[in-house]
Amino acid sequence: MVDIDDIKEYAKGALKQYMFPVGLIVFQCIFIILYGVHADYGLRKVEVTNQTEGVSHNTPPPVGDVEFYYSFFQDVHVMMFIGFGFLMTFLRRYSFSSVSFNFLIAAFVVEWAILVHGYVFEWNPVTKSFPVDVKVLLKADFVCASVLISFGAVLGKTNPAQLVALALIEVVIQVWNEYIGTELFCVYDAGESIFVHVFGAYFGLAVSYTLQRHHIVESTKESSSYASDIFSMIGTLFLFCFWPSFNAGTAYGDGRLRAIVNTYISISASVILTFTVSALVGKGKEEIIHIQNATLAGGVAVGTVADKNIGLFGAMIIGSLAGIISTLGYKYLLELLKKIRIHDTCGVHNLHGMPGVFSGLAGIVVASMPWRSYYHENLSYKCLSGGEHRSAAVQAGYQCAGLLLTLGMAIVGGVFTGLILRLPIFASPDNNSYFDDSLNWHVPQDFVAEDSALGSLIKNILPTNMQLEENPKQATPIIVKYNPNTIEFIQEKSPRQSIQTVSQQSNQSVFLNVADLKNDQSNPTSPVLFTQRL
Amino acid sequence: MVDIDDIKEYAKGALKQYMFPVGLIVFQCIFIILYGVHADYGLRKVEVTNQTEGVSHNTPPPVGDVEFYYSFFQDVHVMMFIGFGFLMTFLRRYSFSSVSFNFLIAAFVVEWAILVHGYVFEWNPVTKSFPVDVKVLLKADFVCASVLISFGAVLGKTNPAQLVALALIEVVIQVWNEYIGTELFCVYDAGESIFVHVFGAYFGLAVSYTLQRHHIVESTKESSSYASDIFSMIGTLFLFCFWPSFNAGTAYGDGRLRAIVNTYISISASVILTFTVSALVGKGKEEIIHIQNATLAGGVAVGTVADKNIGLFGAMIIGSLAGIISTLGYKYLLELLKKIRIHDTCGVHNLHGMPGVFSGLAGIVVASMPWRSYYHENLSYKCLSGGEHRSAAVQAGYQCAGLLLTLGMAIVGGVFTGLILRLPIFASPDNNSYFDDSLNWHVPQDFVAEDSALGSLIKNILPTNMQLEENPKQATPIIVKYNPNTIEFIQEKSPRQSIQTVSQQSNQSVFLNVADLKNDQSNPTSPVLFTQRL
Amino acid sequence: MVDIDDIKEYAKGALKQYMFPVGLIVFQCIFIILYGVHADYGLRKVEVTNQTEGVSHNTPPPVGDVEFYYSFFQDVHVMMFIGFGFLMTFLRRYSFSSVSFNFLIAAFVVEWAILVHGYVFEWNPVTKSFPVDVKVLLKADFVCASVLISFGAVLGKTNPAQLVALALIEVVIQVWNEYIGTELFCVYDAGESIFVHVFGAYFGLAVSYTLQRHHIVESTKESSSYASDIFSMIGTLFLFCFWPSFNAGTAYGDGRLRAIVNTYISISASVILTFTVSALVGKGKEEIIHIQNATLAGGVAVGTVADKNIGLFGAMIIGSLAGIISTLGYKYLLELLKKIRIHDTCGVHNLHGMPGVFSGLAGIVVASMPWRSYYHENLSYKCLSGGEHRSAAVQAGYQCAGLLLTLGMAIVGGVFTGLILRLPIFASPDNNSYFDDSLNWHVPQDFVAEDSALGSLIKNILPTNMQLEENPKQATPIIVKYNPNTIEFIQEKSPRQSIQTVSQQSNQSVFLNVADLKNDQSNPTSPVLFTQRL
Repeated sequence: MVDIDDIKEYAKGALKQYMFPVGLIVFQCIFIILYGVHADYGLRKVEVTNQTEGVSHNTPPPVGDVEFYYSFFQDVHVMMFIGFGFLMTFLRRYSFSSVSFNFLIAAFVVEWAILVHGYVFEWNPVTKSFPVDVKVLLKADFVCASVLISFGAVLGKTNPAQLVALALIEVVIQVWNEYIGTELFCVYDAGESIFVHVFGAYFGLAVSYTLQRHHIVESTKESSSYASDIFSMIGTLFLFCFWPSFNAGTAYGDGRLRAIVNTYISISASVILTFTVSALVGKGKEEIIHIQNATLAGGVAVGTVADKNIGLFGAMIIGSLAGIISTLGYKYLLELLKKIRIHDTCGVHNLHGMPGVFSGLAGIVVASMPWRSYYHENLSYKCLSGGEHRSAAVQAGYQCAGLLLTLGMAIVGGVFTGLILRLPIFASPDNNSYFDDSLNWHVPQDFVAEDSALGSLIKNILPTNMQLEENPKQATPIIVKYNPNTIEFIQEKSPRQSIQTVSQQSNQSVFLNVADLKNDQSNPTSPVLFTQRL
Repeated sequence: MVDIDDIKEYAKGALKQYMFPVGLIVFQCIFIILYGVHADYGLRKVEVTNQTEGVSHNTPPPVGDVEFYYSFFQDVHVMMFIGFGFLMTFLRRYSFSSVSFNFLIAAFVVEWAILVHGYVFEWNPVTKSFPVDVKVLLKADFVCASVLISFGAVLGKTNPAQLVALALIEVVIQVWNEYIGTELFCVYDAGESIFVHVFGAYFGLAVSYTLQRHHIVESTKESSSYASDIFSMIGTLFLFCFWPSFNAGTAYGDGRLRAIVNTYISISASVILTFTVSALVGKGKEEIIHIQNATLAGGVAVGTVADKNIGLFGAMIIGSLAGIISTLGYKYLLELLKKIRIHDTCGVHNLHGMPGVFSGLAGIVVASMPWRSYYHENLSYKCLSGGEHRSAAVQAGYQCAGLLLTLGMAIVGGVFTGLILRLPIFASPDNNSYFDDSLNWHVPQDFVAEDSALGSLIKNILPTNMQLEENPKQATPIIVKYNPNTIEFIQEKSPRQSIQTVSQQSNQSVFLNVADLKNDQSNPTSPVLFTQRL
Repeated sequence: MVDIDDIKEYAKGALKQYMFPVGLIVFQCIFIILYGVHADYGLRKVEVTNQTEGVSHNTPPPVGDVEFYYSFFQDVHVMMFIGFGFLMTFLRRYSFSSVSFNFLIAAFVVEWAILVHGYVFEWNPVTKSFPVDVKVLLKADFVCASVLISFGAVLGKTNPAQLVALALIEVVIQVWNEYIGTELFCVYDAGESIFVHVFGAYFGLAVSYTLQRHHIVESTKESSSYASDIFSMIGTLFLFCFWPSFNAGTAYGDGRLRAIVNTYISISASVILTFTVSALVGKGKEEIIHIQNATLAGGVAVGTVADKNIGLFGAMIIGSLAGIISTLGYKYLLELLKKIRIHDTCGVHNLHGMPGVFSGLAGIVVASMPWRSYYHENLSYKCLSGGEHRSAAVQAGYQCAGLLLTLGMAIVGGVFTGLILRLPIFASPDNNSYFDDSLNWHVPQDFVAEDSALGSLIKNILPTNMQLEENPKQATPIIVKYNPNTIEFIQEKSPRQSIQTVSQQSNQSVFLNVADLKNDQSNPTSPVLFTQRL
């Protein structure tokens, strides 16, 4: 007799297992078709030649576009894949997922973002296509940053299928938001602090809030180890070094120089203030999590005005304040947010959210000083309220509007996305599986949860090549199957205080306290059979 | 009386110890002489000026060659030293050797490749010299890639002397093969998928096959740890990021843009398909080895046609298929190859071999479409069969010939090299020493083989600053000398069940089961004295 | 009654805790003011246009300065933050401090160096300001290198307040020394081997000598682990790859090409000779510390003459000799220097000191060959002894004078700085706290000193989420508070042989030998209460 529940259960398992890969294949096929129909290399030679003749002082160099953008693009590319990827490896049991899902999501997003960006920004109705050149690749990396920031907020609490769905939705909203902001509102935002950092952070926080139905149970897995913290510093330092390339990526001429110098000064200032504040609030000792994250806040905070004539002292003040805000956020705000059920794994609110809003505010202030903002250079006839002849006050107003629009779109979009991700079809992982690579990975033999007494004992006492085997010495046999991550004990019913397990190879024995085993098992079933996931 | 066998043994030991350093010095001296006699900086000003005047639309920019190539060169340089080096650190007991011998071999090869490439490709009979400029450094890095791929196939199974010999021979064959392929056959191969990836992979596999006389005994040392897998991801991600620079390195003009965009799209597609297939074949869980390697297959597979007008959808299809092929190779083919005695440590057949051949095939197909291949741009009067006026069909034929030539040269060259490396003079390591840093390195104190019961016990119980000492409590003394990697037990003849070792500093004691010790010892000698290498 | 000693003690504690952050804030405020008053972006369009007209064959390109310098600058920036930072992570208990204080000091120095360099080198009396463009950022990174080299000599033996003070003083002396050397003596030094490497190394050694009042007690913490050595290789390889950018950073035209090629060849040669010599002196086994460091000596040694026409064979000879010298230094000299109380944690004398002096000597030799040195290109009317018409012999003399001046300034400046750092106000750490992150960091739970028997036991036996608690089973209660890094035992007076500690969660127990505890405690107080820092 076939049980309908069994079928349901089976379907659920199959869904959980195959939804992610099958979904990826489907979208990849759709992408291939869209690229085939609508994308080209942007080699429109005649147009380029025409532009060259009427070149103004703010036009990017008409020759050598590849060379002009490529090294900036590569720096930003490293930030996305190495920088963000390794920054998130700080979780000691979730490093595979952090660096690898970052890899997957980033690769998926660049493909998808080129399409969406192309249709929205670059569509040429004459050729019925959009170009894909180095500058477009760079723009796709910016969209990517936005998704990776959101990823940071939900890190460890989602499965890959959810991440792909998140990326699919977020890219569309992000690109449209940026289109309205830059093309209609004509907001300037050189380093994309508003359209990437603010958007990504609040989108992610909204997803995180919506996705969790209750407070997250504290888990010892949500912590770092000495090695994982050092891996994370790889990410930090590449993000730090290449941040000037991010903020100056699409700038040119004098603006490019200012963007480089301002970002360099601002992010250096935030490094110093982070160390300062971390020591002050830590009673003379530093917290590595501050150093990994808050040091970069100066790069975010100067973003919107990076290519403006804010003066080096302006950049330094912005960076210093950002370092202070961000470090205090990590120290105090993270816990407060948890209390209102907003769990922010990487603290993106402190690194991207607040410094991004701060950058938006700086943009409003600078807009009111036309001799610093040169805002006319960003205007076109398409701009609302005045086209190319907008006043400084109006520009300041639009900078404000752009920031508010972004906050609104991010939060609404994030809540919507969170609701989608809660659908049963996504088989959201439960609290026990958070921050744990073994859910999604075949892990190496040395990956056992030191969090369980048994896991620790076995890890520390048993050599990796030993297998716990059926114990021949005991009257009532106890079968123990030992895999890298799971132990199965099939023992007789009569309770006993301790069992002795003997390694076949070496006769080395380990006494395991039954109390330990019971204490460890996640679902306390009958004593006859229980499986211990390490 | 001097025993002739003793002398032989001593000579063998000395050879083993000194052949590697002395060999390096000898070749370094030869290199210095050759560089002194035949190399210059390529600053032939007059020639450059002349070329500038008659510049065609496909000539690279005559001014600023350094700036034109340098950032691409640096990206590729990072791929060679960081990318390949860290990619191979996945072996948990062989990470020092992986990253460091990669360093040595790469440095050795660039010196040697500049010479061989210079004599073969760049020799100027008038000045009796060859130039060394940034483009030449870039070409040397390509040769280097080829040798490092072969290194991946024999990783952990060779000593440094063998690696140097392998590099010496392979460079010569690789450069000549490429000369015939590009200058006479006029095969195009922008990203060097044929001349570097296919050549390197099959050369390495042939060496691996020839070198091993019997099946490799399975060793627990041939596995990864959680940390070593993360180190490996550093390599993966830098290779991923900079692969467009590799494929576009020597291209220019429109071809450079196409090479960048195509590679970027193709390698992103292979990332997505790798995650997909890995989850499908892994019952919903990913394998980190797939992510570390197969994700990059798209970069290899698009190589030959990278600068061609294959369309972005073409690049995406190529990358997707490459990701599928490569992941399936890692999952199923690796074991099959072992059965025919081809042991491929890094799976270069899956990452470089098959995707490289696939790229070669794509090159044949594209050659038959002149409006996509622009193959005329690669032709010169030196080309066989038609010179600059070759037909598309002929070009397709030569693409095929180039691929077959490369396969042939690689396999024959590899077998030849393997036979050389089997000479007793190289003192090839035996199966027990495979994948183990302690053979070639003074290792830190925490490096003990967890593979042995004793090693694990000592590592876990004994603090690093303790020394096991002569045990004064036992009636019949037992002398124990404890070094980081070796324990020597000199015990009395009468068998005993267990020995107690006491640390001098802390009186902490460890009971070691004699059964364990016996089980561990590699050569079961008399119980009187045995040395345990941890 | 208030005790005057208590107040003193309290003041000392507060000073220790707050001097570092408060000092940083004060200097940051001063920097902001100085940047506000005197720094600009260097966008002096008119001047640039004038220069363009009278451009000589050695003038850098007048257009696109950003693009001309930026990718070189980024490479050097990565060297400072990733390269130096990770190179120093080799200490297994000090990796947080190594990579993070390197981060802090580098960020602090670039801010400070831009100011000092600006006032000394770039001051424009007309505009009363100095420019900050990409080339200046690059120069600031060079100053930074100098301080980070000195940091390497005192690594693990200083607190952050001392490091900041060191940086403050060293930057001023370094910049003035370089000003005298390059502007008055007109010494050429393309790769800054004299003004950065020699200066930084001997300054650091002088500080190290002055700071330590007695021989450093050998500590097991001053060692590496398998993982920390691999982290260090990240630094090595990035320094290796980008060294050509360092040496060619400020060069242009033909000199830039020569600087790239010479550095590439020289540093590759030193890699090969390092492996060679390390194997020779290590009885066939390599030392990873040699590979991490001495491999780079070729980059230092070719620095002064990097852009000169020394020929590729010249570069190769220089690099080979540097590799030999440096490796031998690590093998033999490090211990000798310790005997005269010069403790050099990273061996900067071997990597930067000796190869730097060697480079200076090479500079003298090359100066006497004008057809190789083109020394006239470096001369201006400001030069002492002959202005732009100096003879080759005079130039050689000034090269020598520059080297000696640098050695003198470095040693005198270093001794002066060391005396400052010894002031009680800096609360210099004592020998027991050397090489230990727990002094300056809140460390993760898995950071316990395996160096103590107790620490090792607890680390290996106790799962991380267990807390040792008051033991209810013992007649006379013993209170144990267990923190990640500290255990406090409050036990009754009567001595006992062993105590049993029981984990509350799992009833797993650990027997701790009182002898162990006593053996471990750093200050042997009464048995009633002692705190064990792990």
